[in-house]
Amino acid sequence: MQLTAKVKEILSWYEGECPGVKGNLARLLMQGRLAGTGRLVILPVDQGYEHGPARSFAANPPAYDPYYLYQLAIDAGLSGYAAPLGLLEAGADSYAGQVPTILKVNSANSLSASTPDQAVHGSVEDALRLGCAAIGFTIYPGSDACYDMMEELRELTIEAKSCGLAVVVWSYPRGGQVSKSGETALDIVGYAAHMAALMGANIIKVKPPTEALDLDAAKKVYEAEDIDRSTLSARIRHVMQCAFAGRRIVVFSGGEAKDTEGLLNEIRQIRDGGGSGSIIGRNSFQRPKAEALALLDEVTKIYLGDA
Amino acid sequence: MQLTAKVKEILSWYEGECPGVKGNLARLLMQGRLAGTGRLVILPVDQGYEHGPARSFAANPPAYDPYYLYQLAIDAGLSGYAAPLGLLEAGADSYAGQVPTILKVNSANSLSASTPDQAVHGSVEDALRLGCAAIGFTIYPGSDACYDMMEELRELTIEAKSCGLAVVVWSYPRGGQVSKSGETALDIVGYAAHMAALMGANIIKVKPPTEALDLDAAKKVYEAEDIDRSTLSARIRHVMQCAFAGRRIVVFSGGEAKDTEGLLNEIRQIRDGGGSGSIIGRNSFQRPKAEALALLDEVTKIYLGDA
Amino acid sequence: MQLTAKVKEILSWYEGECPGVKGNLARLLMQGRLAGTGRLVILPVDQGYEHGPARSFAANPPAYDPYYLYQLAIDAGLSGYAAPLGLLEAGADSYAGQVPTILKVNSANSLSASTPDQAVHGSVEDALRLGCAAIGFTIYPGSDACYDMMEELRELTIEAKSCGLAVVVWSYPRGGQVSKSGETALDIVGYAAHMAALMGANIIKVKPPTEALDLDAAKKVYEAEDIDRSTLSARIRHVMQCAFAGRRIVVFSGGEAKDTEGLLNEIRQIRDGGGSGSIIGRNSFQRPKAEALALLDEVTKIYLGDA
Amino acid sequence: MQLTAKVKEILSWYEGECPGVKGNLARLLMQGRLAGTGRLVILPVDQGYEHGPARSFAANPPAYDPYYLYQLAIDAGLSGYAAPLGLLEAGADSYAGQVPTILKVNSANSLSASTPDQAVHGSVEDALRLGCAAIGFTIYPGSDACYDMMEELRELTIEAKSCGLAVVVWSYPRGGQVSKSGETALDIVGYAAHMAALMGANIIKVKPPTEALDLDAAKKVYEAEDIDRSTLSARIRHVMQCAFAGRRIVVFSGGEAKDTEGLLNEIRQIRDGGGSGSIIGRNSFQRPKAEALALLDEVTKIYLGDA
Amino acid sequence: MQLTAKVKEILSWYEGECPGVKGNLARLLMQGRLAGTGRLVILPVDQGYEHGPARSFAANPPAYDPYYLYQLAIDAGLSGYAAPLGLLEAGADSYAGQVPTILKVNSANSLSASTPDQAVHGSVEDALRLGCAAIGFTIYPGSDACYDMMEELRELTIEAKSCGLAVVVWSYPRGGQVSKSGETALDIVGYAAHMAALMGANIIKVKPPTEALDLDAAKKVYEAEDIDRSTLSARIRHVMQCAFAGRRIVVFSGGEAKDTEGLLNEIRQIRDGGGSGSIIGRNSFQRPKAEALALLDEVTKIYLGDA
Repeated sequence: MQLTAKVKEILSWYEGECPGVKGNLARLLMQGRLAGTGRLVILPVDQGYEHGPARSFAANPPAYDPYYLYQLAIDAGLSGYAAPLGLLEAGADSYAGQVPTILKVNSANSLSASTPDQAVHGSVEDALRLGCAAIGFTIYPGSDACYDMMEELRELTIEAKSCGLAVVVWSYPRGGQVSKSGETALDIVGYAAHMAALMGANIIKVKPPTEALDLDAAKKVYEAEDIDRSTLSARIRHVMQCAFAGRRIVVFSGGEAKDTEGLLNEIRQIRDGGGSGSIIGRNSFQRPKAEALALLDEVTKIYLGDA
Repeated sequence: MQLTAKVKEILSWYEGECPGVKGNLARLLMQGRLAGTGRLVILPVDQGYEHGPARSFAANPPAYDPYYLYQLAIDAGLSGYAAPLGLLEAGADSYAGQVPTILKVNSANSLSASTPDQAVHGSVEDALRLGCAAIGFTIYPGSDACYDMMEELRELTIEAKSCGLAVVVWSYPRGGQVSKSGETALDIVGYAAHMAALMGANIIKVKPPTEALDLDAAKKVYEAEDIDRSTLSARIRHVMQCAFAGRRIVVFSGGEAKDTEGLLNEIRQIRDGGGSGSIIGRNSFQRPKAEALALLDEVTKIYLGDA
Repeated sequence: MQLTAKVKEILSWYEGECPGVKGNLARLLMQGRLAGTGRLVILPVDQGYEHGPARSFAANPPAYDPYYLYQLAIDAGLSGYAAPLGLLEAGADSYAGQVPTILKVNSANSLSASTPDQAVHGSVEDALRLGCAAIGFTIYPGSDACYDMMEELRELTIEAKSCGLAVVVWSYPRGGQVSKSGETALDIVGYAAHMAALMGANIIKVKPPTEALDLDAAKKVYEAEDIDRSTLSARIRHVMQCAFAGRRIVVFSGGEAKDTEGLLNEIRQIRDGGGSGSIIGRNSFQRPKAEALALLDEVTKIYLGDA
Repeated sequence: MQLTAKVKEILSWYEGECPGVKGNLARLLMQGRLAGTGRLVILPVDQGYEHGPARSFAANPPAYDPYYLYQLAIDAGLSGYAAPLGLLEAGADSYAGQVPTILKVNSANSLSASTPDQAVHGSVEDALRLGCAAIGFTIYPGSDACYDMMEELRELTIEAKSCGLAVVVWSYPRGGQVSKSGETALDIVGYAAHMAALMGANIIKVKPPTEALDLDAAKKVYEAEDIDRSTLSARIRHVMQCAFAGRRIVVFSGGEAKDTEGLLNEIRQIRDGGGSGSIIGRNSFQRPKAEALALLDEVTKIYLGDA
Repeated sequence: MQLTAKVKEILSWYEGECPGVKGNLARLLMQGRLAGTGRLVILPVDQGYEHGPARSFAANPPAYDPYYLYQLAIDAGLSGYAAPLGLLEAGADSYAGQVPTILKVNSANSLSASTPDQAVHGSVEDALRLGCAAIGFTIYPGSDACYDMMEELRELTIEAKSCGLAVVVWSYPRGGQVSKSGETALDIVGYAAHMAALMGANIIKVKPPTEALDLDAAKKVYEAEDIDRSTLSARIRHVMQCAFAGRRIVVFSGGEAKDTEGLLNEIRQIRDGGGSGSIIGRNSFQRPKAEALALLDEVTKIYLGDA
């Protein structure tokens, strides 16, 4: 399929990357119903590791089956599907070539009470073997483990890119100077996106920012410079600016399951603020399939500009 | 021997694996009296490391001899025999080709008072040299050492599978957010099985779950979704569901030595709940050999559907 | 371009280095308006990682764009441009060959509350791939992490020099025996420069020292030997002496944004004290471009001896 | 020299090992006055590292000289000589081929006040270069460092055996759940021997056990099963049973210097209990050479069955 | 130059070493005015790293210049010159072949307040590249970091010797069971020398011991065995005995700057006690050059037996 002008422009931002990485970014950008628009909707399923299987799948038991999740991403015409090793392996052969996959290579779990950290349980070699387009990695800037996590990310990034894989970074500040409510404050989310960009992330995942400001030193600047944070779309625009003046792909999570209209409004503002798209997990696979497809159809239409 | 349809189906679940790994899973599934049924009974002898030799073998002193343990697994027609390096090495040549072996590559010990952790004392190279079908590894999700243990597992898994060895994971939550009694709670055991599956385990070993629920966030879901946990067989069914909707082999430990009838009832419920089989250590090698063989005969008959 | 006698003299100080390293030092010394003078003015942009994007760029929003920063260094006729991976990657192709770049390979962040440390997020391989002249690395002598940071530096230095890259060390004492105000005390800054030189740094970056003395044992010597610290130029002269009697290139940061005249006076004293030049970040990119160019023109003239 | 039936039997227990390892075990078993009997007396000199040189050698100053120690082992007709790197290196050439040597590759020291641990200061490469028959390694089961020590041992064991070197493990429980007096309790010593065997030790060194029982869970079993611990020979027999029903070589230390008759009685009981032999350090090299040779002659005669 | 009988004898003690290491020991033993005597005087300049440049060089400012230090060692006819990477690199080419150099590969600094430890900032590769005869390494037996430091030393020793470089160990007990004043107690210094010898050091550097005894267990032995510690020469003799009965080269530091006569008397006793020589840093480079040369002339004469 021929690349659209929009996709060519996006790829031109990644001038530091080898053709293999650009090719994999193109795979994600040219897939599904949003192909060629420069927007992405990705299905992530790492909640089983993070929260346990029942909290993730009991509301919609067919989702316990790895095949269901692949099929959902395909049937909804999404841009990609991200999951930890076991889930991808379980269907990698059956669904080979049908949807670009992102191997999520590290995870936390809800049983641990230690310093916020994650276990690296996937490898670049795994991602290659399974035909993935990218690896995904979470960092917790702020945590006492953050410097170690960043160094793990750097090593995996070098290895992944040298093999032509793209790198998706979940940048989730946590611990240290960051208050619990501050994890989604505007200054913190913008900072999170910027650090991920500086570390070479090709695609950045952050949470939609609130109006709050968490660090005193930042607050002073936001107020002095009168940075607009009155609406979500203004805040999204600021986060995109923090990602190299919009030269990086930034997708936003849907957060905890919420009512449909609330979710769709949020997505309209992400679109209006220039966000690159959404990662929608629990809001999709925790509903019966028909409802999930209907919701994802709405989301897709918003990014297509039809809603 | 030709694979049965059941075994072929099980192997089809492991579509991410190379032929070597599938071949070794087949070795375990086509061994002994349960060959071809899709069920497994495995003899594990790692209690000497974990609890000391006298607590393990004094009740039946012939079991101090490594040959005795190999012979027990063979005479009882079991599917496999799992033990740490020294025990396997001590009979690897004499019993070569007579029973598939699983090299347990890490162990805790009862002398340590530190954070729950284990020493890795075996290697993939050892497993290959000794002709094993698989390596076995314990993780303690919840422990402050859990992220490190998971990363060790991941490295060993990559190495083992690249050599065609299968990977068996003992997934035993401990410490962190998990209460002592919660270690066998249904939500915890299901979570443990799910994490092992996500990390690429080919065979998962967990404890039979109790009716308890340990984490508040999980409890809410189990109650809201009304997940059946009234009988052991219902709970086993839930654990199998947590293992990719039954697409992974999950075997259950027998736990501490108990009376024979209690054990057999438990195994009937594991069978009825769709569990893949049992790992029976202390309940077998701590009895005089004749008694042990009689018991294992009963267990086998249950899985054959004859009891 | 032919090397000047001054540059040849400077290169002669680095008699331990291979031709590749000397060539890259020459690239920095023969670039821009100060080419051949033996002086350097470098644009560093690592504040986004250290303080967050809004605190760094909101005062002059065009600076959010990586292209702006490259262009600023080029338009001002500076000696080099130093930044973390993502910023360099974002323009490495567009600006190839137009200004020598320094890949800053480690960074701290303002979200962390742990022991002063940094994450290594760039590599020698990255620097080579991006056509850089040097890598940059920060050490925090005094911090509980300082021995580890120094060992990281040593490994990167060996690797970088073996590939012909120069090594720039930001030597910023922090923690341990060093008081907060003592971080810029004369004894501490001189010590910082000396340690960097001992570790093989080709270019050393320190802060302009104050008249204060922080360590009692050092204070005794400074007073007994009557070391002149009455003026900034005298203090700069002492720091240069601490850098192998002036045989190493030492550049001084501009510190926090301040009024223009204060900054220019400081730079005059750096010049008079024999300092090798300046690293000017926030004082340049946080002003509108025209103002920044005017300021950098003044700075350049000072080092040219015209102001 | 032709192997005796007894030595052949012992080698047959090591069926997992390559011919190189068996050959080196044979070197130890076929050396000196006990050659061919299946018994061993080894001279260990690691006390200098552990307690300092004066506490080790001042009572018999010729022993400060590395040559003296080699000569003592040779003149007494012992089975082998074990020491850290420096001591072996100092005479490796002069005494090449005269007595099998064991390179003790890790040591603690009496100046440290930290968690019981040791520094690894020797390597398999050193052992090969010096013509050793084996490496020696100490583990402290129970110590907070025990899992790390066990992992170090495992790595060295794989490397050593792959080169045909035998592995001798000093298994000394310490710290954690083990009380100070419990370090020589029967349950602890048996457990120590068992863990070493499980980790693949070819020769195991433990201390002669006392009648005490240290762990409550073990005590219950020893009492319930009525394990005989009334005499040292009975306890030795139990320890040998813990070492794979006697299929591993276990040697016992002489402990602190004591009166000659006490020592000889202890050795008679080790012999009667089926122990493989003794490691006698301070009781030999801290006496004048003539006395030491006389004592070692007595010890040898006991193991020959003549005393 | 032909080796003297004395140097041949010394080299014969190092029977474990390859010809390259012996050749480099010969370089040190055949250099300068003490060539062939078996005695050594070495100039060490690591005080800049340890105490800062002003405390090291302000008393004699020409010493800030790396060339000055090389020239001092050459003009005084010393046996060798030891310094960290940067100082050696700064003159390695200009002074190639004029004096054997020892690359000091680790250093502490006075800004750190952490557990006594050092950063490894030099490598074997550096030492080879700079034409050094040896590497130098400090251990702090007793420190909580001591086992790690010893393991670093072991790895560097293996690497260095495999390339024919000699290994010089600064053995400085500190922390743990060692009291502050006990760092120079006789039992501690003897122990320090012994451990360095056991770890394979070719040349050992310790401090001249005082009459004190620091560890109770050692004190008992020193008193029971009536070890002579009444004079410095007797104590030196004991330390040499602790170094394999004098079979290792042991040099003694001059310690803090002191009056000339006190220093010379100390050196006479080192000579009379059989010490191999001195390492004299601050007492030489902190004086004006003429005075320093005069002092080193006196020292040399003492070791030549003329004073």
